[in-house]
Parts: sequence; C-alpha cells; structure tokens
Amino acid sequence: MTTVNRIAILAVGLIGGSLAMAVKANGFAREVIGWGRRESSLETAKKLGVIDSYSLDLSEAVSGADIIVIATPTLIAEEVLQQLAGIVGPDTVITDAASVKGNLLSAAKNAFGKVPANLVLGHPIAGSEKSGVTAAKVDLYKNHRVILTPTEETCQQAKTLVTSMWKSTGAEVVSMPVAEHDEILAATSHLPHILAYTLVDALAGHSDTSSSENVHNIFRFAAGGFRDFTRIASSDPKMWHDISLANRDALLRMIDIFSHGLADLREAIAGENSEAIFSSFERAKAARDEFSDILAKQNQSTITDE
Amino acid sequence: MTTVNRIAILAVGLIGGSLAMAVKANGFAREVIGWGRRESSLETAKKLGVIDSYSLDLSEAVSGADIIVIATPTLIAEEVLQQLAGIVGPDTVITDAASVKGNLLSAAKNAFGKVPANLVLGHPIAGSEKSGVTAAKVDLYKNHRVILTPTEETCQQAKTLVTSMWKSTGAEVVSMPVAEHDEILAATSHLPHILAYTLVDALAGHSDTSSSENVHNIFRFAAGGFRDFTRIASSDPKMWHDISLANRDALLRMIDIFSHGLADLREAIAGENSEAIFSSFERAKAARDEFSDILAKQNQSTITDE
Repeated sequence: MTTVNRIAILAVGLIGGSLAMAVKANGFAREVIGWGRRESSLETAKKLGVIDSYSLDLSEAVSGADIIVIATPTLIAEEVLQQLAGIVGPDTVITDAASVKGNLLSAAKNAFGKVPANLVLGHPIAGSEKSGVTAAKVDLYKNHRVILTPTEETCQQAKTLVTSMWKSTGAEVVSMPVAEHDEILAATSHLPHILAYTLVDALAGHSDTSSSENVHNIFRFAAGGFRDFTRIASSDPKMWHDISLANRDALLRMIDIFSHGLADLREAIAGENSEAIFSSFERAKAARDEFSDILAKQNQSTITDE
Repeated sequence: MTTVNRIAILAVGLIGGSLAMAVKANGFAREVIGWGRRESSLETAKKLGVIDSYSLDLSEAVSGADIIVIATPTLIAEEVLQQLAGIVGPDTVITDAASVKGNLLSAAKNAFGKVPANLVLGHPIAGSEKSGVTAAKVDLYKNHRVILTPTEETCQQAKTLVTSMWKSTGAEVVSMPVAEHDEILAATSHLPHILAYTLVDALAGHSDTSSSENVHNIFRFAAGGFRDFTRIASSDPKMWHDISLANRDALLRMIDIFSHGLADLREAIAGENSEAIFSSFERAKAARDEFSDILAKQNQSTITDE
C-alpha cells in the first residue's frame, strides 16, 4: 500500500477533518498537520486527535508535506492557491475538495502562470448538514464517490498519489474533465439548491400567495413532498453563494434550460394541452424511476449530501 | 359519539379504502358500500373486509346512504358529481377527498343548478406513494389534517356530520374557503410537483447538459439533495395531470411568482451581485428553518404525501 509521511490539511472542518481522521486511521499518512484561520478550532481538532499538530502560518503548515489538501470553502480556496504558488515546490502534490473545479483551475493558472503538473483538483461527493471539525467522522468518504479532474498538464505520479489517498478512505475514485464535472454538478446539485431557495423565498416573500396573508399558514398545511423538496433550502447560504459564483456559467446555462422547460409546461397548462402535460410528467417519472434503479444498484450509502 | 347507518364510498382505492376501514373499525358507520368501475378491485376490497358490499351501479350504491364520499381521481369527481345530481336527495350528505376544490364547486353549481346545502367539499392531506385498495390502511388519517371547504350555502348539520366522520378516523379537521385551500395547495404541493417534473424532464431531455451526452452519467453523480428534491417526480402522471388542470389558475399564478423569483436570482448570479444572492438564500433558509420548527412542534406523523 502507498503511504506518505505528511499531509497538510488547509481548513480542518467537516471535510478536512474527516479526511485527516481517515488517513491517520488507515495508515496512509504518518502525520497530519492542520492550518486554518481560527486557532480555537485547530486546537479542538488537535484535542480530538483529528490532526497531530497545526500552524496558523501557511508556509510552516505546508513545509515538508507530501500532499497539501485545500479543504476551505470554495471561494477561499482560490486565495489559498494564490498563496501556495509562492511557497510550494514541484515535489509537493496539491489537491482540494471544493464543489466547483473551473474557478480553481483558472485561479491556479493565474497564480502559477500555468496549470502546475503537481495539482490534481478533486471533489468528494460527501457531506452532512452539520459542519465543523466536531462533525468530522472517520468513515465520511467510505463508499462515496470522489471525482478527480486532472488536466493534460497533470503528471501521472500526482494523479496516482491523490487517487491512493482517497481510495484509502474507502471512496470510489473517478476522473473526468473539469468542464464535465462542473456541468454535472450544476445539473444535479447546484440547480436544485437554487430552485429550492427560490421556492421558499418566493412563498415567504409573497403574502398574496395566501388569502390569509400568512406564511405560517402556508407552511402549516405543507405535506411530505414540500418538506423533502425544500430541505436543501436550509443549507448554508454562504457556502451556496460561493458555489453560485464559482460555477456561474454552468449554473446559468442550467437555469436557462430549466426555465425554458417550465415556460413550456406553463403554456401547456394554460392551454389545457393534456397531451403535452401528461407526456412531460410521464417522461420525468420514467427518468426518475431509472434514477431510483441506479440508486438501488449502488450502495445506498454512496448517496448523501454534497 | 355521532354514528351513521351507511356510507357509500365512490372508488375504493387507497383514499376511499382507508376511510372505509377507519369508519368501520371505529364504529362511526354500521355499513360501508363501495362503488367503482372495475369489479375486480371492488371484489378485492370486499374480500379484504374493507367494504361490506359493492355495486357497479351508482344509483344502487348510493341508495339509502347517509354520507356519500367521492374518492375518485380529481377530474372523474366532476363527472360523478354530475351523475349524483339526478339521483341524490337533500337528506344525503355528499363530500369528497380530491386535491382541488374550486373545480368541484363549479361542477356542483353546474350539476345542481346551485351549491347544494348538503355538499361539504373536503381534502384529507394524507396519502402514500402506493395506490389501490391493497395499500389502504386503517390509520392513514390518524394525526393528519383534513381541510373542509364549506360555503355560505352549506348547512350546519352536513358540516358537523362530515367533521365527525373525519374526526372519528383520528384526523384534525380545519375549515377554510375554497379559494384559500386551492392557493395554499398550489403553493405547497402542486407547484413543487411541477418543478420536480420540470427539472427531471429537462435533465433527461437535454443531452447537452453533460459533455458525455449521457443522462445516466448525470444521475450517477447525483447526491442526496437531488434524490430528495426529485422524489415527487416519481408521482403518478395521470393524477398530477388532473390536478394541474383542476387547479389551473392558482397553479399558473404560483408558477409566475416562482418564475419571477428565479429570473431575479438568475440576474443576481449573472451580475455577480453577492448581496442579492446571499440575502435571497438567507431569507429562504430562515423561512425553511421556521418550517422545520413548525414540523417539530407538530406530530411528525401528520406530515406525509399529499
């Protein structure tokens, strides 16, 4: 089994903390060093045994690391890449765990002058509605998918090392181009969050949606479909603000595809076009039932929050 | 406790069958007679003990009934009301269990020449992804809400009797105007179904949403948010086709409110208006968290499919 001496994890929250716990528990890394902005949180991580030590100084934290994992929120990861450009040599592998890859590829080009061969951007499709290092758990990535998005410039050795790291946590690792990752995530994750936020905000904001002019009354009679449909509207606004901006172009394309579909269906309902309404619902049900089949064939536990 | 001699249930599926089981089990009705179009299904209902007897002839089925419950799909309920107009006298109370009330009020006016005093339209907010009499269960309505929508023409006695019937099943009964019911359901149930159908149909129909041109690939990387968000797209297309047409006007208003909200958010994302994006998500999260609080205070079991 491949092992490394030292991993530096930049931001030790749910995502970084869970990775630290896993690579220490399975022996992939001999030592894990944390970096972050709030010492109290790093101190907690150390006390919990999630990391071996920490530094508030980025250069110190990454010094001597075999792998650097950027596990900060999406937009902060851009800044961290910028800072790493000046202090990390070509022998250290850099990877990350953010939800969008295109913005970080651009940030890397700007920071390093080109896409560095030692950079392997990645995205573990795992998470929880909880956050912070106290929510970290050793098996967060077990049976989950990790998407790596290496480019033509990425060296094979770096790719292999990052793949080994994630495989050691029990994850299934797949690779795809940056653009494809961002399109797929825009469709299956970012757009649904936008729609859920929009629905709840629209209902809460328009008192004329109820003759009693009472949002409370609307929610009071909401059923199970509404509860499940809007659950993701309870997600962290800052995180999803960052993702919306980081994946802006792919997200706008998906919003437009959705809006055209909704406009077509609106027209069918307004015109009482039974055939068009029914076939739209029927196609959707067939596709959703196919998705249920895919879910059933996969280990159920691979499917969680993003 | 109020009791009646005979209830006629028109269509003995999940909704009608569960009501039949409850009113027989709790002694509210001495006898339950079923009516439907498929004898095999009525025969099953009888064998299961859900109903005491049945008739394929509507006049025969409702003859001597104290209460007639129309439990057919939404649009068929309009036809059934039309047929009942010729055969039911003023001493028999008529109610229903359909998801939209405005279309049935209009149908009743057309059929009876005015809103009959013995008609109490109602809607139990309960259901299941399963359907048919074999899915019926005696406690389907326990701790669930039933919305009654009596009008000025409705006589007090009929209202009291239908309220007693639903209360006997363990349901909480509330009353509101027809228009308010249809607005609230359009907002919390009908619109979310439309959005889920639209999203899945859009993703399945647009091969250019993925550079691999493969719907399967999109679904393969979908996470928990997508699963919950799209679950209601597996609902029965015929049922939701009917509801979309029956509640057309309220639904179109809600689609328009939603579309305006989505267009505003799209503009904010396109213009990288951080402030607007963040406050929209923040408002939505606050409202959704309030909804979670309402859920937590209610008995959890009152929240199910509609």
